[in-house]
Amino acid sequence: MRLLAFLLSVTLLMLASHTAAQTAPLNLMPQPASVTPGSGAFRIDSNFTVAFIGHTESRLDRAGERFLTQLHRQTGLLFGKPTHDLAKATFVIHTDSASKEIQELGEDESYTLEVNSTGAKLNAANPLGTLRGLQTFLQLVDVTPDGFAAPSLTVKDQPRFAWRGLLIDVGRHFIPVDVLKRNLDGMEAVKMNVLHLHLSDNQGFRVESKKFPKLQEQGSEGLYYTEEEIRDLISYARDRGIRILPEFDMPGHSTSFFVGYPEIASGPGPYALDRKWGVLDPAMNPTEEKTYNFLDDFIGEMAKLFPDQYFHIGGDEVNGKEWDANPKIQDYKRAHNLKSNEELQAYFSQRVQKIVAKHAKTAVGWDEIFVPGVPKDIMIHSWRGPQSLAAAAQQGYHGILSNGYYLDLGWTAARHYAVDPMSGEVATLTADQKKLILGGESAMWSEYVGPENIDSRIWPRNAAIAERLWSPQSVTDLSNMYARLDVESTRLEWLGLTHRTYYRKMLRRIAGAATAEEFTALKTLADVVEPVKEYTREETAPQEATSLTPLNRIVDAVSLESDTARHFSEVVDKFLAIACHDPAIADELRVYLTRWSQIERAFASLAQKSSLVKEGMATSRDLSAIGGAGLTALDAIAASKPLSADQQAQLGTTLTEAAKPKLQLLLVPVASVQKLVAAASQTAVCTNK
Amino acid sequence: MRLLAFLLSVTLLMLASHTAAQTAPLNLMPQPASVTPGSGAFRIDSNFTVAFIGHTESRLDRAGERFLTQLHRQTGLLFGKPTHDLAKATFVIHTDSASKEIQELGEDESYTLEVNSTGAKLNAANPLGTLRGLQTFLQLVDVTPDGFAAPSLTVKDQPRFAWRGLLIDVGRHFIPVDVLKRNLDGMEAVKMNVLHLHLSDNQGFRVESKKFPKLQEQGSEGLYYTEEEIRDLISYARDRGIRILPEFDMPGHSTSFFVGYPEIASGPGPYALDRKWGVLDPAMNPTEEKTYNFLDDFIGEMAKLFPDQYFHIGGDEVNGKEWDANPKIQDYKRAHNLKSNEELQAYFSQRVQKIVAKHAKTAVGWDEIFVPGVPKDIMIHSWRGPQSLAAAAQQGYHGILSNGYYLDLGWTAARHYAVDPMSGEVATLTADQKKLILGGESAMWSEYVGPENIDSRIWPRNAAIAERLWSPQSVTDLSNMYARLDVESTRLEWLGLTHRTYYRKMLRRIAGAATAEEFTALKTLADVVEPVKEYTREETAPQEATSLTPLNRIVDAVSLESDTARHFSEVVDKFLAIACHDPAIADELRVYLTRWSQIERAFASLAQKSSLVKEGMATSRDLSAIGGAGLTALDAIAASKPLSADQQAQLGTTLTEAAKPKLQLLLVPVASVQKLVAAASQTAVCTNK
Repeated sequence: MRLLAFLLSVTLLMLASHTAAQTAPLNLMPQPASVTPGSGAFRIDSNFTVAFIGHTESRLDRAGERFLTQLHRQTGLLFGKPTHDLAKATFVIHTDSASKEIQELGEDESYTLEVNSTGAKLNAANPLGTLRGLQTFLQLVDVTPDGFAAPSLTVKDQPRFAWRGLLIDVGRHFIPVDVLKRNLDGMEAVKMNVLHLHLSDNQGFRVESKKFPKLQEQGSEGLYYTEEEIRDLISYARDRGIRILPEFDMPGHSTSFFVGYPEIASGPGPYALDRKWGVLDPAMNPTEEKTYNFLDDFIGEMAKLFPDQYFHIGGDEVNGKEWDANPKIQDYKRAHNLKSNEELQAYFSQRVQKIVAKHAKTAVGWDEIFVPGVPKDIMIHSWRGPQSLAAAAQQGYHGILSNGYYLDLGWTAARHYAVDPMSGEVATLTADQKKLILGGESAMWSEYVGPENIDSRIWPRNAAIAERLWSPQSVTDLSNMYARLDVESTRLEWLGLTHRTYYRKMLRRIAGAATAEEFTALKTLADVVEPVKEYTREETAPQEATSLTPLNRIVDAVSLESDTARHFSEVVDKFLAIACHDPAIADELRVYLTRWSQIERAFASLAQKSSLVKEGMATSRDLSAIGGAGLTALDAIAASKPLSADQQAQLGTTLTEAAKPKLQLLLVPVASVQKLVAAASQTAVCTNK
Repeated sequence: MRLLAFLLSVTLLMLASHTAAQTAPLNLMPQPASVTPGSGAFRIDSNFTVAFIGHTESRLDRAGERFLTQLHRQTGLLFGKPTHDLAKATFVIHTDSASKEIQELGEDESYTLEVNSTGAKLNAANPLGTLRGLQTFLQLVDVTPDGFAAPSLTVKDQPRFAWRGLLIDVGRHFIPVDVLKRNLDGMEAVKMNVLHLHLSDNQGFRVESKKFPKLQEQGSEGLYYTEEEIRDLISYARDRGIRILPEFDMPGHSTSFFVGYPEIASGPGPYALDRKWGVLDPAMNPTEEKTYNFLDDFIGEMAKLFPDQYFHIGGDEVNGKEWDANPKIQDYKRAHNLKSNEELQAYFSQRVQKIVAKHAKTAVGWDEIFVPGVPKDIMIHSWRGPQSLAAAAQQGYHGILSNGYYLDLGWTAARHYAVDPMSGEVATLTADQKKLILGGESAMWSEYVGPENIDSRIWPRNAAIAERLWSPQSVTDLSNMYARLDVESTRLEWLGLTHRTYYRKMLRRIAGAATAEEFTALKTLADVVEPVKEYTREETAPQEATSLTPLNRIVDAVSLESDTARHFSEVVDKFLAIACHDPAIADELRVYLTRWSQIERAFASLAQKSSLVKEGMATSRDLSAIGGAGLTALDAIAASKPLSADQQAQLGTTLTEAAKPKLQLLLVPVASVQKLVAAASQTAVCTNK
């Protein structure tokens, strides 16, 4: 019945957006569980007044102020303060009762939002639902022929998954508090509810410890959050209905512990912070009681600082080399019948889990901690994938998915969007087992990420993952997703995120004192290249990349998903989908291809001025070449004269060369031009020229 | 001798920038008093290390950190902290001794900066010179073929005027502290040294008073700076070598005093904050001792809060209506032989000046306070112009100029740049009288300015005024100034100013859910329009503008000086300067004109979706028409066939219509297209076609 209502409302929505010329499509992201369109719209002007009724608390007062600030930013209109006078209010927000003092997994986040031509009403069981509904309202407001307005409709909404997180790795590159805050704003906008902070790694330890001050003093180079900053961040997150999950990675990825406290390491020391990336040797010593004494004190302290019920202990990627090299550890393994380093790590994990439990927290760890005999009250965080997640669920363990949501790998939003926590082996689970899958987390690992480009590595693609975790599983239309993502991307900039503005700023810096024409050439190239994908950036680095490598190159500035290349690809597909080629669409393609084909001279001239531009030289030649190839193909198609075998071979060579990344830059439109050349190589089937 | 050295160094500089292909032009703004180029360049990489020697103080430590932060932003490189180890340092900064505890007018701001291929040295008499020199160094660093570098040279620099200010009117629209701070950063970058805060006006009173709390409680709608914020702002400014000059406007422009304290007004009251702009009736009562008692207490409090030696008492634009309407004031005038309201105001001014003097401050006031008999220790701030300034100087009064520097009037940078405090009547003064002219202040009056667009109203044009006040009078080359201004504009965005980013954001908001093509149409128009100039925005408002009017229209978003229109105009002039028309330049013009001529359809389609875009409809038709007119002219010139009389008449009508502002939007390229049409109307003189 509920499914029927949902399908009906979605159908109505689609109809509505196609019938009335006046009705703009709803740019909601994530898509709500149910939307029923109404007629007319609620005009937003300076008479717009908000009233909060029912349960009240200071968090809701702040939410109201933030809501009005953001509405002001989105519209430029001036509004009065929230009122308690119902008669005056045009947007009445009713909250039934309080939520938990410390936000818990699985609390009710549902809400109902009704908008008609005279006003709006939002109802929620508790402040979490209110926060979600306010964001939906903000997404409804846009400029119309009659000023700013929200369309009439009824939204009934709740999340599909209770755990919808974003992991930010602040260990490898430190990310300042203000950057985290603007990302919390972004998370609130797309209804995510867990910020997972990866707080320690080989390159840095990022939290002040009063009990073990050498952690931050010797393990952070001064780049860490004070206790006060952490408390402030937690309360900032709580205001937005977001939990903060701390992670301290152990026993591996832990060099930063050992700089100040080498006594808990397995090697002889001394240790210095690592500059290199990857799976390194240092690991905690799982065979000494002093390690567990240290961790008991340390976890006890951090368990107090971070109020969340969950506590992430990492557990990934231990290569075992320090264990193998330490005779005492070898003795211990033999004495305790631990047959492998995996078993030794399992022993360590169990000890640490007991410590976590002692401090009244639930342990979370990466796949590696899921080994036979581990207690059931832990949660598996899967970087390996659905198989691992399903196996854990079959044995009764809770799990969340990050495999498929690694933002640093440079996947398209579409590819992340297709990853569903309930797919693969998980789809074969029983209904009860499926309940153990709590959601997922996108993950921003920070090898190549700093304060300048982190926003563009997270956004807007993270909004697509947020939708996957909130919206019904049936919401999968890609072109619809991308249309909404474009709009959301603009809104996120108004929240203070910098994914678009810093792209331009970074290009300006790369360009130096460029002429307008030269800068255009650089931007034309930058608009259609992406960094190499997956983990190949490591392998293709011109010099070995470390934590001290400047992130100021073209590859650091460009988007991980080129909008321009995607648009071009859409136009190519549209062009090739029609048997009789449409000259208007062909002209659209010519605009792109001509611009690309002409890039070389201005680019070369700028490359002579800037060493950073020079890195793009080979790619600019490729871009120019594929522009020319595309134009040749279009000419052949227009003339209905298929390309000769010679031409095909020549263009084939050009495209093969252009498809090879140069200095870590991937030229994205090559595949689309390839399609044009392929079409131009065949005898035309269209006869009504 | 000094002049000769300067001319020589400028000549060398110009030669240098034209001879060596490797030598980029110096993008310094303001231009230093003397630059002697060297050979080679100082490469900036992660080994770059700064040492501060000689006099040290915490302000210099902070300056060092800020310098490295900004250098990091400009380069993306990572640097170590400042060192005291001279052997390690590649940039050694020597400061002789301390400057005054409270920054004073006329302190030494000179510095010497030497850069060679192995390092750099900065020497200054005191921290003010050090701050100026650090900014010069930052402006020298840019990307080169070999990474980031600063060219070898010697700069010997000092300001031409001691008073180089920016006035920000925070009364009419409140400007938050963070916006003021980023503007202080911008001022530091261009070596300005006075931030003049216009703190009260009819629309708002913006400072917390402990003695008269109803000032902020009833006069600010909650939008004011606390004492603590003011102290923080003053120390932020002092760190940047900038004084803060407070202004409390009286006896007019003072409604915001009267909301809480009607007893010092001339009318019967009660008073409410004014929403309208302009010269309004309310004025303080100059005939009652309680007014002076109030001001004595009030000025005493503010004189303590603001440490600067100068205290601005306004004094402008009293229309006298409340005085005329108050019988007791009329009686007083008769009793005291005050023949006019001007004499009454002079009496008031003298009383207030005595109060200011009693609190150990020097009074500053607008031209109106300069009346016979006023004491010599005051300073005249001229909004009226050089005549008024010269008259005051002839009588021994100090003066600063703001006439010609009003940023809100929409003048071009070139026009502001041409205004010299020493020109006009001032040029005829004796050498001693000229010494009384201390400098000037640009003025950002805020009728149509809020936090979103204030940066784009101030920057980058303010940098041209800053140069006028710092650099030698002989520095007047306009195209050189504009080239440097473009570069400086980019740098200012890295400092955190938003003049470019908010333009795009505001256009996005105006556009709503536009297609890419529609947004391009809007941007194409926005790039070549400016708000109507001088005070005509008031007269042409579609509805009466008040302090509550949203600032979200096209006219609020667009730049006050269109870069695109200026570039187009330059190309037209280049095209017409050559007798035989150059087809390459003609093609450049065609790119502009074709884009404009094709704007109408997409613009109209967007106007149907957005009421804010709709305001640009008439202008989009004009832009399309002048695009067509320009193309017609180019065709005629190319064909050497002058336009017929009919064509001329028709295009004339088109251009006349397009020259009329529509909904406050001025279409800037009309005059340049007019030139093309005029050229096309004449018989071609070029014969070697």
